[in-house]
Amino acid sequence: MYRFENDYSQGCIPEILEIFTRTNMEQTSGYRLDPYCKAASEKIARACGKDDLDVHFLVGGTQANFTVLDSILRPHQGVVAAQLGHVNVHEAGAVEGVGHKVLAISNGDIKKDDESKIYPDILDDYLTKFFAKGDWHMVQPGAVYISHPTERGVLYTREELIAIKSICERHNLPLYLDGARLSYALASENNDISLEDLAKYTDIFYIGGTKCGAMFGEAVCFTNSKYNLDFNCITKHNGGVLAKGRLLGIQFDYLFTDNNYIEKSRNAVKYAIMIKNALENRGIGFIAESFTNQQFPILSKGQKKILDDNNISYNIEANIDEDKDCIRFCTSWATGKDEVDYLLGVISKL
Amino acid sequence: MYRFENDYSQGCIPEILEIFTRTNMEQTSGYRLDPYCKAASEKIARACGKDDLDVHFLVGGTQANFTVLDSILRPHQGVVAAQLGHVNVHEAGAVEGVGHKVLAISNGDIKKDDESKIYPDILDDYLTKFFAKGDWHMVQPGAVYISHPTERGVLYTREELIAIKSICERHNLPLYLDGARLSYALASENNDISLEDLAKYTDIFYIGGTKCGAMFGEAVCFTNSKYNLDFNCITKHNGGVLAKGRLLGIQFDYLFTDNNYIEKSRNAVKYAIMIKNALENRGIGFIAESFTNQQFPILSKGQKKILDDNNISYNIEANIDEDKDCIRFCTSWATGKDEVDYLLGVISKL
Amino acid sequence: MYRFENDYSQGCIPEILEIFTRTNMEQTSGYRLDPYCKAASEKIARACGKDDLDVHFLVGGTQANFTVLDSILRPHQGVVAAQLGHVNVHEAGAVEGVGHKVLAISNGDIKKDDESKIYPDILDDYLTKFFAKGDWHMVQPGAVYISHPTERGVLYTREELIAIKSICERHNLPLYLDGARLSYALASENNDISLEDLAKYTDIFYIGGTKCGAMFGEAVCFTNSKYNLDFNCITKHNGGVLAKGRLLGIQFDYLFTDNNYIEKSRNAVKYAIMIKNALENRGIGFIAESFTNQQFPILSKGQKKILDDNNISYNIEANIDEDKDCIRFCTSWATGKDEVDYLLGVISKL
Amino acid sequence: MYRFENDYSQGCIPEILEIFTRTNMEQTSGYRLDPYCKAASEKIARACGKDDLDVHFLVGGTQANFTVLDSILRPHQGVVAAQLGHVNVHEAGAVEGVGHKVLAISNGDIKKDDESKIYPDILDDYLTKFFAKGDWHMVQPGAVYISHPTERGVLYTREELIAIKSICERHNLPLYLDGARLSYALASENNDISLEDLAKYTDIFYIGGTKCGAMFGEAVCFTNSKYNLDFNCITKHNGGVLAKGRLLGIQFDYLFTDNNYIEKSRNAVKYAIMIKNALENRGIGFIAESFTNQQFPILSKGQKKILDDNNISYNIEANIDEDKDCIRFCTSWATGKDEVDYLLGVISKL
Repeated sequence: MYRFENDYSQGCIPEILEIFTRTNMEQTSGYRLDPYCKAASEKIARACGKDDLDVHFLVGGTQANFTVLDSILRPHQGVVAAQLGHVNVHEAGAVEGVGHKVLAISNGDIKKDDESKIYPDILDDYLTKFFAKGDWHMVQPGAVYISHPTERGVLYTREELIAIKSICERHNLPLYLDGARLSYALASENNDISLEDLAKYTDIFYIGGTKCGAMFGEAVCFTNSKYNLDFNCITKHNGGVLAKGRLLGIQFDYLFTDNNYIEKSRNAVKYAIMIKNALENRGIGFIAESFTNQQFPILSKGQKKILDDNNISYNIEANIDEDKDCIRFCTSWATGKDEVDYLLGVISKL
Repeated sequence: MYRFENDYSQGCIPEILEIFTRTNMEQTSGYRLDPYCKAASEKIARACGKDDLDVHFLVGGTQANFTVLDSILRPHQGVVAAQLGHVNVHEAGAVEGVGHKVLAISNGDIKKDDESKIYPDILDDYLTKFFAKGDWHMVQPGAVYISHPTERGVLYTREELIAIKSICERHNLPLYLDGARLSYALASENNDISLEDLAKYTDIFYIGGTKCGAMFGEAVCFTNSKYNLDFNCITKHNGGVLAKGRLLGIQFDYLFTDNNYIEKSRNAVKYAIMIKNALENRGIGFIAESFTNQQFPILSKGQKKILDDNNISYNIEANIDEDKDCIRFCTSWATGKDEVDYLLGVISKL
Repeated sequence: MYRFENDYSQGCIPEILEIFTRTNMEQTSGYRLDPYCKAASEKIARACGKDDLDVHFLVGGTQANFTVLDSILRPHQGVVAAQLGHVNVHEAGAVEGVGHKVLAISNGDIKKDDESKIYPDILDDYLTKFFAKGDWHMVQPGAVYISHPTERGVLYTREELIAIKSICERHNLPLYLDGARLSYALASENNDISLEDLAKYTDIFYIGGTKCGAMFGEAVCFTNSKYNLDFNCITKHNGGVLAKGRLLGIQFDYLFTDNNYIEKSRNAVKYAIMIKNALENRGIGFIAESFTNQQFPILSKGQKKILDDNNISYNIEANIDEDKDCIRFCTSWATGKDEVDYLLGVISKL
Repeated sequence: MYRFENDYSQGCIPEILEIFTRTNMEQTSGYRLDPYCKAASEKIARACGKDDLDVHFLVGGTQANFTVLDSILRPHQGVVAAQLGHVNVHEAGAVEGVGHKVLAISNGDIKKDDESKIYPDILDDYLTKFFAKGDWHMVQPGAVYISHPTERGVLYTREELIAIKSICERHNLPLYLDGARLSYALASENNDISLEDLAKYTDIFYIGGTKCGAMFGEAVCFTNSKYNLDFNCITKHNGGVLAKGRLLGIQFDYLFTDNNYIEKSRNAVKYAIMIKNALENRGIGFIAESFTNQQFPILSKGQKKILDDNNISYNIEANIDEDKDCIRFCTSWATGKDEVDYLLGVISKL
């Protein structure tokens, strides 16, 4: 089986295991109060060009998302997200579990492209009308959530990010960015948003580890001291504190040494673009245009059968019509050249 | 520094890292749907003598506790726990965060020994009076929580466990047992509760990994099909699903091979008893009698100074009076003979 | 000012105040354990043709909705509702506040009529696909919520209600019906759903008082003993127990004597239909076709100005385009013939 | 039956019903945006000597308590209360339902008098030690809750109130005072805390209506603009907004006209003191010394039998030993002279 179904099928970048092994019998304080977490925080702060960045390490993405939103929203507030935002669809109601509605805005007929993205003009229109009406019988927008890349692999432009941040500021809302697959954005030639930009143009963002080569772990970064008060305790309150916290520190320390976080994702993006091009050459369309490690082609039953017959595994993303499905191919730091070559061969028969 | 402050200062039993390394590039399904989790579940079920035991792997103890309680309690119900129960004191309100009061019962003057334990007669008295009164303006007991060993290292007897289970059944309440340090109970000569007993005399229990030699992870076991409905989804809802779930499977598969779970904890208990005896020989008293890996002696300022001067690190558990504190010494699977010998030497000077 | 903006601008049906006055100094048990609540429950049960109907009196509609849903949903479940369902839009996130997502299904292009209604075929399609997929990373549908009449005054047919109930049963979900304005449905000639039908074809429904002539109060009726366990305590837990509960009993006792609940709403519906016809005569369209006490015509700025100039007050329901808004006219048990005649005169000038 | 079991057995002060009747057919805006709520707010502000007091009207006490605490606490924070605080015992976990632990401090052996009261020195000691330790694995105190009079009828002194407020300020915590029976404190000769004092020495307090002569309703007063942000929406979020809000305005407008709030409670307190003295004359002890409308004598089985035989109804407050119970006698604005005389006659036989 040639597996392209997701980016968390393997363990982790082997060097991480080596460091775990080398440091295994060291004794350190628990709960992320160890020197590795400290070093990793400092390296991340440096990479983001912001000395006072406040970095917290959590184990997983859903955990990071609902814990951050639990921390920054008041009881009557919700979080504005795209229809396909991870918090809206794939977290089993974790955000609602801590009491908050996901205010999923739709791109409607205006921007048909993709419901994984929030477009600045649509966001502004929504917020402006909402606050103009001032209806306190409705959930109040209390934060804006975006993913970069989005759940469909789509990139925001730097200009869009700046526009969204500026809209948030105008409406006095924090901007929270989910970077579950951030490394694949940063490694993409089509991306013009840097870590420095994230530190400047969001209030909170998280740097994904789990899907980007770590064994597990996400680094939640607060750029704004208005929002991080008592975040350690709120993380504990939500069950997100790892006893042997240094495991998180060690991983992010490694990832933010020698630019590993981006370098280790370069092949994944290169391979994904090769797959994208091959599919386009066969005249196959996509549900959204991605320049990152996830590709979402629309295939007929016949085409899927060819994949199946050739032992290619993939995800079904969405049903399009009676004959067609949108599927997902995913590459990762662990994808090998020969697997990709094999897949390209199969694609040439679609 | 000779560290005896807790049992999660090191990484993990080295063999686990070896297996991680050996299996690192295998591709498996995520979310604990992989063969390692399956194998581990089967081995745990076998060790518990119960084929249909339903085993779920979570990352940490607080997470396990509040997720289980979220799953089994209805909105108006609380969980009965000892005053010192982990859910009552050291989880930053995680149980309340999912909407439930911890109904901490006190042993009062009747059993002065230790507030980490629930005594069957006190529990029965409490529940009988509560339900006789039937006051629906009060939080209703909806489950009983006990820890084995308790937060003070104390063991329940098999007889007590059976009595508590029988009281729970009489009042139609599930019994949930927190086994964060279960391996140190099972490895203790003073323990007469087996894994089979847990499967028989609790409704849910968890087998602790984090503090018992794993890198992280807890195995939540449902013995009763009344309580596990949709537990996967409720775990996701609470942010407790590890994407690379096989990491949990691998660890518990190892721990439940060749009786490792118990064998790897034997030294820790042996050393703890040596420390206990040495302290007793010096005439030092304890806040509770423990035959497991945690010891809670009561020391004067002068005695603590001797420890400090000799580079022994320990935890402060509780303040007793102006001169005295109860401290904690903790051994673990990772504690070495020479460290213990050094500590015994220092104790002989107290 | 001639007020047609809502159905809760006045106090209550005067006879209720007379009974309050007559019984004021009687001493009764609190918390709805008094003879008036008992009598009212029995009369409601009789009117619904179901002796064992379990009736609970709460103060308001939002309170009734989130308390019922808190009681019947497990943590990972959400409630399926129409886009315009009250629980989705106008309760400031009360349902999310108790931890549950509102799964708002859209009628999309298929049924363009009105997003306040759930159409059986769309519901069935949604549930069938959802459970077929079986994705436990998503919020699970745990109940279905409908309003009769809907938030746009639309009536379900008996046939639709039976179809929805049958779909719910097939998917093992309770059906909950919000009857905030139920009296205006029951008093409408176009309605073919009786109280007996509600008791047969829903699991829980509430009979609205606040908007139907009572001073305040809603009667939550459980038709199915699977769902009402400990509802008193869950109501208390959510702050919904009125100390002087007999005030609720007295009102519903009155409303369910001599068919008052329906009779007192007949004029409101008759007047609303007169307003509807008058608007239609002027060629004015509606956002949805209502045969109950709310009418939602679409008016131009010019037409709204005529209303304003003639001291007619109304609600803005939705913006349609640059020139047009959908507005709401509301009649009630308290609306007088002369007010209606005046409004009809103004409408004739639109 | 001569009923002394509580202070909410009757309807309301008759004049309130008269005003309801007189104003019944007036049309006003809903949701407490009417002129009566405005007038009542102004009168309350004036009575408290604080023009910018922000007053919100809710229906009941449990609702007021958990809604205020939901509004002012962050997720990881709890509210400090006395063991017998209403929020700790008699609200079916409403505070936990919105995610917060009640941190019930005990008076222990130091002040044995009564667990319904927080003593300044004990509070200070608790907070000082807690924050000195700084353990973020524990629920953080986020507010202090006191009741005046307490659940046992006990009064704080002005000096104690000022001390508690000062301790709260030192620890940067808001002080919230539950005045469910405030009128009976204000009407007591032994009380030296005025409404002005409450406005000065608390951050939020509520003026009880339900138990003090109103049909229902509590006036939540924010003295500090740090805490009332979006409280309307948070009330709606918790189901606490009454559609016909003017009913609340009318009642508090009446209660704060001509000093009715206090005057109408004077007899209740006078009668309670007569009952207190009569009991003392019989050598009967009390669980706590109350100078308000609740009295808590400790009676033997024989004495209770005399009450029962003479048709006196009362509440059982607590069991003392095999022979003795603490019972509650309650007077109210509705208690008549002849009822009291009858009770005094029965007491003389105890």
